[in-house]
Amino acid sequence: MAEVTKVALDAMGGDNAPGEVVKGAVEAVLKEEKVYVYLVGKEELIRAELEKYEYDKARVEVVNATEVIEMAESPVSAIRRKKDSSIVAGMKLVREGKADAFVSAGSTGAVLVGGQVIVGRIKGVDRAPLAPLIPTARGFSLLIDCGANVDARASHLVQFAKMGSIYMEHIMGVKDPKVGIVNIGAEEEKGNALVKEAFPLLKETKEINFVGSVEARDIPKGAVDVIVCEAFAGNIILKLYEGLSSVLVAKIKEGLMASLRSKIGALLIKPALKETMKAFDSSEHGGAPLLGLNGLVVKTHGSSGAKEIYNTVLQCVDFKDQKISERIRDCIQAAAPAE
Amino acid sequence: MAEVTKVALDAMGGDNAPGEVVKGAVEAVLKEEKVYVYLVGKEELIRAELEKYEYDKARVEVVNATEVIEMAESPVSAIRRKKDSSIVAGMKLVREGKADAFVSAGSTGAVLVGGQVIVGRIKGVDRAPLAPLIPTARGFSLLIDCGANVDARASHLVQFAKMGSIYMEHIMGVKDPKVGIVNIGAEEEKGNALVKEAFPLLKETKEINFVGSVEARDIPKGAVDVIVCEAFAGNIILKLYEGLSSVLVAKIKEGLMASLRSKIGALLIKPALKETMKAFDSSEHGGAPLLGLNGLVVKTHGSSGAKEIYNTVLQCVDFKDQKISERIRDCIQAAAPAE
Repeated sequence: MAEVTKVALDAMGGDNAPGEVVKGAVEAVLKEEKVYVYLVGKEELIRAELEKYEYDKARVEVVNATEVIEMAESPVSAIRRKKDSSIVAGMKLVREGKADAFVSAGSTGAVLVGGQVIVGRIKGVDRAPLAPLIPTARGFSLLIDCGANVDARASHLVQFAKMGSIYMEHIMGVKDPKVGIVNIGAEEEKGNALVKEAFPLLKETKEINFVGSVEARDIPKGAVDVIVCEAFAGNIILKLYEGLSSVLVAKIKEGLMASLRSKIGALLIKPALKETMKAFDSSEHGGAPLLGLNGLVVKTHGSSGAKEIYNTVLQCVDFKDQKISERIRDCIQAAAPAE
Repeated sequence: MAEVTKVALDAMGGDNAPGEVVKGAVEAVLKEEKVYVYLVGKEELIRAELEKYEYDKARVEVVNATEVIEMAESPVSAIRRKKDSSIVAGMKLVREGKADAFVSAGSTGAVLVGGQVIVGRIKGVDRAPLAPLIPTARGFSLLIDCGANVDARASHLVQFAKMGSIYMEHIMGVKDPKVGIVNIGAEEEKGNALVKEAFPLLKETKEINFVGSVEARDIPKGAVDVIVCEAFAGNIILKLYEGLSSVLVAKIKEGLMASLRSKIGALLIKPALKETMKAFDSSEHGGAPLLGLNGLVVKTHGSSGAKEIYNTVLQCVDFKDQKISERIRDCIQAAAPAE
């Protein structure tokens, strides 16, 4: 039998905590024998939710944590002050080796800071990038980095490219994933200072399948599998994706309500449209991993329901089974043998 | 009677040149008495198109230019070598004061380079930003800068904010336009090095209505009227807007063809949907101006038809009538009285 994957879940994080987190955790335990979950947060609230379900009690452990980090709090001071918060307590389980992964739908900032400070980076990794999947015309691409550490150096982008390639190949099953650097034109001589410096470094990196620049226009077409960029640019891409999709869909819906004729049409197209938009839903593949840490940290959407939590727990199992951390360590450390 | 606005049109630029350029120019001359157009390009081709129409021949002048700058050419060397190209010849008309504005649907790079090199910047303007309108849930916002000069300094962003505000107020009629700087969070302490430096400078700039940071997520909602950013970020926003809109619309269309039921529905919603998408079409307001030059330079879409050309000529009339160049000059030079 394969090894058990132990996942610590922030039972207090996100809009639907603790109900949906507990539900998703129980579903994952029911589905997958080699999963063990810690539900971290206010014990009485978690137990009240757990009572609703039948499950293998030997594989669900409640870890009491009395504090909650709110979305509006400054991440750095919250991580420092709230030692008994679900995020700090859950990440400590990873640091102590009791859990393989930590999952939270709570404050992105606190998850990013906690990941670096509590879980810690793999030796040789300079920055831990946040790498969400974004939907494209052809499936999903990994956008790396969308984290909080802006103004990356060219050498960081090379590490992002390596880590992203490992994730796409071994978790998403994309053979020899195409890596592109976000740029303002397709030519090698184009770009800002950072891109111009990173481009030749990426070109000579043997471990990746670097295909050159990718213009933002071609990202939604699925032109590359791993979209490498500095976090400020990555954040713009991720947030604009969300904002523009929702405004466009709202505009279209508004248009559908314009006349009786279009209203009838809207009723007829509803099921097909729903199916189409579902293909655009990255939460089917779990949350956004924070890569390069001594253990996996995953940020799920603040609006996560049980299904996203469930998918994220299975993502953690894949991450362990596929030895992603070990692969990242070996790949990064091979490039810096002096360390 | 108001002064005549003289517009030089690149009759060779874009996918539909010279036919649609000539058609749009003639329509503008027919509509607006105080317009004079130069059609710059291969004379025999232009005259063959002109023969199709009735118009006031005293206000249409053909300027022969035998060369064409192709899309794939390096802009810098093309501007230097092809002295008899429609872009170089048209821009020279502006430099010599014979034309107030130059309009091209051709190579963006060549238009940007030619604008700086041939037309030249207003004294005190450090960079001439390209400022397209992008559609939002509430109308249109000006995205400034999307040009070719990346890695702007904080002081450049302040100038972009001033120029963008003048354009939105006097051309688009937005009173006291809200200015936001593109950032990865709403708080003042967030951002990359450039944004952190620019934020306090923008805050103390009296001539603008600075409202703080704007997250990419809120751009499509129309959160601000003038979106200030460095050109690399602006290019990502502009191109992702185009790419994501077209992929989403294609996905939805694909969904509509999924079943007989949805196909019937699609027929019923078609007119309403077309109307909705039309509200998202920025070409109704002309092309993207390159601001801060000694005269107006406008880049229209490569796919421009007669209507976009027509609208752009009227945009040039507004630009002159509203004295945008003079306003920009006064505003920028007031900040640097030592010059």
